[in-house]
Amino acid sequence: MPTVKLVGDDEAPPEVRAIYAEISSTLGRGTVPPFWRALANDPPSLRRAWVQFSEVMAAGALDKLVKEMLYLAVSVTNRCDYCIQAHTRIARELGMTDPMLAELMQVVSIAGGLNQLVVGYQLEPTDAGEGTRNP
Amino acid sequence: MPTVKLVGDDEAPPEVRAIYAEISSTLGRGTVPPFWRALANDPPSLRRAWVQFSEVMAAGALDKLVKEMLYLAVSVTNRCDYCIQAHTRIARELGMTDPMLAELMQVVSIAGGLNQLVVGYQLEPTDAGEGTRNP
Amino acid sequence: MPTVKLVGDDEAPPEVRAIYAEISSTLGRGTVPPFWRALANDPPSLRRAWVQFSEVMAAGALDKLVKEMLYLAVSVTNRCDYCIQAHTRIARELGMTDPMLAELMQVVSIAGGLNQLVVGYQLEPTDAGEGTRNP
Amino acid sequence: MPTVKLVGDDEAPPEVRAIYAEISSTLGRGTVPPFWRALANDPPSLRRAWVQFSEVMAAGALDKLVKEMLYLAVSVTNRCDYCIQAHTRIARELGMTDPMLAELMQVVSIAGGLNQLVVGYQLEPTDAGEGTRNP
Amino acid sequence: MPTVKLVGDDEAPPEVRAIYAEISSTLGRGTVPPFWRALANDPPSLRRAWVQFSEVMAAGALDKLVKEMLYLAVSVTNRCDYCIQAHTRIARELGMTDPMLAELMQVVSIAGGLNQLVVGYQLEPTDAGEGTRNP
Amino acid sequence: MPTVKLVGDDEAPPEVRAIYAEISSTLGRGTVPPFWRALANDPPSLRRAWVQFSEVMAAGALDKLVKEMLYLAVSVTNRCDYCIQAHTRIARELGMTDPMLAELMQVVSIAGGLNQLVVGYQLEPTDAGEGTRNP
Repeated sequence: MPTVKLVGDDEAPPEVRAIYAEISSTLGRGTVPPFWRALANDPPSLRRAWVQFSEVMAAGALDKLVKEMLYLAVSVTNRCDYCIQAHTRIARELGMTDPMLAELMQVVSIAGGLNQLVVGYQLEPTDAGEGTRNP
Repeated sequence: MPTVKLVGDDEAPPEVRAIYAEISSTLGRGTVPPFWRALANDPPSLRRAWVQFSEVMAAGALDKLVKEMLYLAVSVTNRCDYCIQAHTRIARELGMTDPMLAELMQVVSIAGGLNQLVVGYQLEPTDAGEGTRNP
Repeated sequence: MPTVKLVGDDEAPPEVRAIYAEISSTLGRGTVPPFWRALANDPPSLRRAWVQFSEVMAAGALDKLVKEMLYLAVSVTNRCDYCIQAHTRIARELGMTDPMLAELMQVVSIAGGLNQLVVGYQLEPTDAGEGTRNP
Repeated sequence: MPTVKLVGDDEAPPEVRAIYAEISSTLGRGTVPPFWRALANDPPSLRRAWVQFSEVMAAGALDKLVKEMLYLAVSVTNRCDYCIQAHTRIARELGMTDPMLAELMQVVSIAGGLNQLVVGYQLEPTDAGEGTRNP
Repeated sequence: MPTVKLVGDDEAPPEVRAIYAEISSTLGRGTVPPFWRALANDPPSLRRAWVQFSEVMAAGALDKLVKEMLYLAVSVTNRCDYCIQAHTRIARELGMTDPMLAELMQVVSIAGGLNQLVVGYQLEPTDAGEGTRNP
Repeated sequence: MPTVKLVGDDEAPPEVRAIYAEISSTLGRGTVPPFWRALANDPPSLRRAWVQFSEVMAAGALDKLVKEMLYLAVSVTNRCDYCIQAHTRIARELGMTDPMLAELMQVVSIAGGLNQLVVGYQLEPTDAGEGTRNP
């Protein structure tokens, strides 16, 4: 059970309603997900999160689907169930097929497993070789 | 300092040498990174890790660069310094530009930050909406 | 479902009952939360955890509310749902208001997000500047 | 070694220089820490991070020292060495004494340890009791 | 709710059915757990995971019970509820008694708590002493 | 660099000296590791940590070597470098051979990797089957 109220449309102050309208239109669902309604208890938190999310997840040097898949990979590694459910769905809407999801999970899984070995045997960052910075 | 010996070419048994040759040729560096040399103390560990890594990271439904970026995102989230250094370099060799790296890190960062809010306010997975499974 | 039995008042041996009485009186709830009942399967585990918890969470150089908020911040970062629910409630009982909770979560969220950037770009601890140790 | 260039004052474009000036004046150090110089490779990343950081860490319902201590607690839990060094120093400058630091670390440590027990024994969030949401 | 279909016996292609048979016989349950059915959407993922799991978890220099307890300790630290439930049960079937489980959890808990202190005070790996590598 | 002073033998108050003597004798090294010296800035922290550590790590239903290996597995998963170095050494002193270390790391690695898949596909704890609690 959420530890804060989910702010409904009717009880939202005008500044929150304006952001709700933008969220609803950008996500194209005709509704505002509970995450944003939880943040709306503190309007500046809602504004900051939405500005950041909408700017960062827009298409740029990386396209929207790649960004969604990266978001999903991080959410799995951070064990955020709600986030995994939501971003699996969004990635699918953007074109992620079942084979793409399977490969994404395989990469996440072997990265997780091999990260453990590198740390466990205490390999040093300097051993990874020079030149990671572009000239 | 690594907690196990890094197995040199000269002291490697034939089965390890064969895998070293394959690693060296696949990675195209003319050398075998220390990670694989640490695993070589137990040849079955080396074999399993290499088979898994080479199969999963090959181009498929996702291309190699997207896979490397996913690997990097997970390694950042798991705080594996060696892995971050190595996979930043590999992703760059596969075409990741500075703007792409900046966007990748922005996605990793907001996913990390927003994951915290979702968990902190205890939003429930079922709130994320139905339909994450393809029909 | 818990993987161990939650030890009821009736089945508890005397040493456990004594600690239950102390927990009940210190927490002021007239009941013993399930966490302590799970530990009671191994009385030394119960004793150690309770001594530690009651000593560390008592008012000292930091007051009880600040300690509860720190506990909550760590529990969010560690994704412990039960702990988040319990310590959100306790912090509220100690005076945490909705705006304080919102600010706590904002700090937890940006710390989580910016930690990712620092690690992702591999900034070195030595770069954070000297003088963290008091003279 | 950082995987991106740390942007120097001389090579910074005007928009970055303006933010550098604000950072330098707000932090009161007469210098811009390397973290911000790493972000400056992508000016929108720098702007977003700085706006967020300066808004969230300013005094509000929680004072600046409590916020710094929460930031430090999260950075420890996330194992971000640079962040721990930097925020230990800032918290000290804001008045954190050695006994306060010791108590902070004790809370972080027992929260970490007890979180493990709760998860390990699979206690359910619903067991933590009702009423975490304010009426 | 799982984000992928759990592949039933009837709809499984022959290569998946063969692995299901092996899983069922090795685990000795007369049924295939949902984890493997989720992986079966991508047969190579299923094969890789099963080969790895069955090879690594077989008795070797460490016996099966010690391996299960290590697996459980990692799953607790990684907060994987399904994994904790499954491996607590398997470890019990292999002979883990209640006192052994209690001691396992105590070790996991103090390791988690003391890890926090080491990181929080920024103790350096080199301080842990030389000689971790066998001569 | 540690963020607190490492308390030397000469500057330690009597209560700390007494614990140092016990640590030195129990660990059998003729010296007190830096971790305990960092805690000694707050004698109650030192006492609590030492009592807990020495009680929990003593032989019981699990022998000392199994406990050390569990401690090491958790420290790897928590990325605590100092802890990994220290407990790899202690486990070796208690009889952990190279093949045992290799198998330990393989279990830690596959548990880490498979945990990711379970979480990523959102398998539910209830799917792991009933009966994890002993009758």
